[in-house]
Amino acid sequence: MNQNPNSRRVELWPLRPFPKIRPGDDLASLIASALANMSLTLCPGDILVVAQKVISKSEGRIVRLDTVRPSERAVELAARTGKDPRLVELILQESTEVVRVGVQVIVVEHRLGFVVANAGIDQSNVSDDGGEEEALLLPEDPDRSARSLRDELSALTNVTCGLIINDSWGRAWRRGVVGQAIGVAGLQSVVDLRGRRDMNGRELKATDVAQADELAAAGSLLMGQADEGTPIVLIRGFAVSGADGDSRALLRPRSEDLFR
Amino acid sequence: MNQNPNSRRVELWPLRPFPKIRPGDDLASLIASALANMSLTLCPGDILVVAQKVISKSEGRIVRLDTVRPSERAVELAARTGKDPRLVELILQESTEVVRVGVQVIVVEHRLGFVVANAGIDQSNVSDDGGEEEALLLPEDPDRSARSLRDELSALTNVTCGLIINDSWGRAWRRGVVGQAIGVAGLQSVVDLRGRRDMNGRELKATDVAQADELAAAGSLLMGQADEGTPIVLIRGFAVSGADGDSRALLRPRSEDLFR
Repeated sequence: MNQNPNSRRVELWPLRPFPKIRPGDDLASLIASALANMSLTLCPGDILVVAQKVISKSEGRIVRLDTVRPSERAVELAARTGKDPRLVELILQESTEVVRVGVQVIVVEHRLGFVVANAGIDQSNVSDDGGEEEALLLPEDPDRSARSLRDELSALTNVTCGLIINDSWGRAWRRGVVGQAIGVAGLQSVVDLRGRRDMNGRELKATDVAQADELAAAGSLLMGQADEGTPIVLIRGFAVSGADGDSRALLRPRSEDLFR
Repeated sequence: MNQNPNSRRVELWPLRPFPKIRPGDDLASLIASALANMSLTLCPGDILVVAQKVISKSEGRIVRLDTVRPSERAVELAARTGKDPRLVELILQESTEVVRVGVQVIVVEHRLGFVVANAGIDQSNVSDDGGEEEALLLPEDPDRSARSLRDELSALTNVTCGLIINDSWGRAWRRGVVGQAIGVAGLQSVVDLRGRRDMNGRELKATDVAQADELAAAGSLLMGQADEGTPIVLIRGFAVSGADGDSRALLRPRSEDLFR
């Protein structure tokens, strides 16, 4: 890899068609098949961006709401927010702190450390019968999920790629969701450019770039959330900086948090 | 455009080499030349992501710090934050509200409406002589800058592309900066997927996707900030949703703001 890391273009490939995922499905095999169907061969340096939904579904992180008994606190928060008390109960169970409460939204610190609306729990895209009785939780440990899927793919293809599990989250001051990395394997999540020279030859001060989040956003562009979408995007040609990492590196330490 | 919008791959092309920009430089001509040097022809549907720095520099948004007289409030905030009082004065002049104050950081509402650290003012990559006496402000009106540059490119190439001015900003709860759109022309910034069907055929509820921010993040990946970087990235093959838009659509309305 002595060549200029940015000398070539980067390609984003949506892997399609890709089947609907059910609990227990073997994602690695399905990804390998999807690649083969597109005559694509996994290459070193490739990065796969995988939607959280298919990871959670394959891991069976589905909860039927009629099995959830809301606590008193959940009932109270449900009344304040207009949300389903059973869903609020799941949000509380998945969280370590309620950060803010608004109409239809409960911003929490997820047990994984992320500050996120509604604990990242999704009610859409879940139920097969058109009902609204199910909720989809984030994976138990998305970094572990990312490493496992990468390792299974490596066993199938003999190539070790980078892998990012992405979810679409809102932001405090900006409209619209963007893809963000919630699980990472095979690349560094935050790259420190300190010490490099800027375009005028001056040494850069502090420039930590959240490359895993930027890759997640890029992959997310091609996923869509409707019929023509796909949960898997291959990123080829991006010269990843840094060694192996995880999503915890993306968490701002509490000591630097100005908004809690 | 009857074909499946995601049937092909998306390509990201860093435009290199690209010259260092000085006040008054004609960015449109320089971009057209850079494209020609790479044997690339601008096509309908192409999107150019352009770093804020080169827009601000070409527009002469450079302030010599020795011309700045800090106000009493700036001196006080400088003492609290450890920042240069002259820089703090510029931050205050560019802002309508101080949102939070921390070590080396003043989070403000910029006069353009963005909530951003240090009013997006940059001290690196500015001075030619290695000194630190200059600051680079955001463009006066980045949406106008985006439209102008798009129109000038259209006059040169007879092709009207989408254009995003991006800057790398931090986030409240996540480490590392990511590319965000601060000026937009020729595409919608936030796409409403409401009413479409999800992968299980259910109608989606509310899914506003900040596609301009995701495109800015994707472009930002290839810019880098060091020697091998470039301030211009061409995105080809992405089926833009929606008509013309601007960066104001990315601002969360104050009435929905849970963190001020």
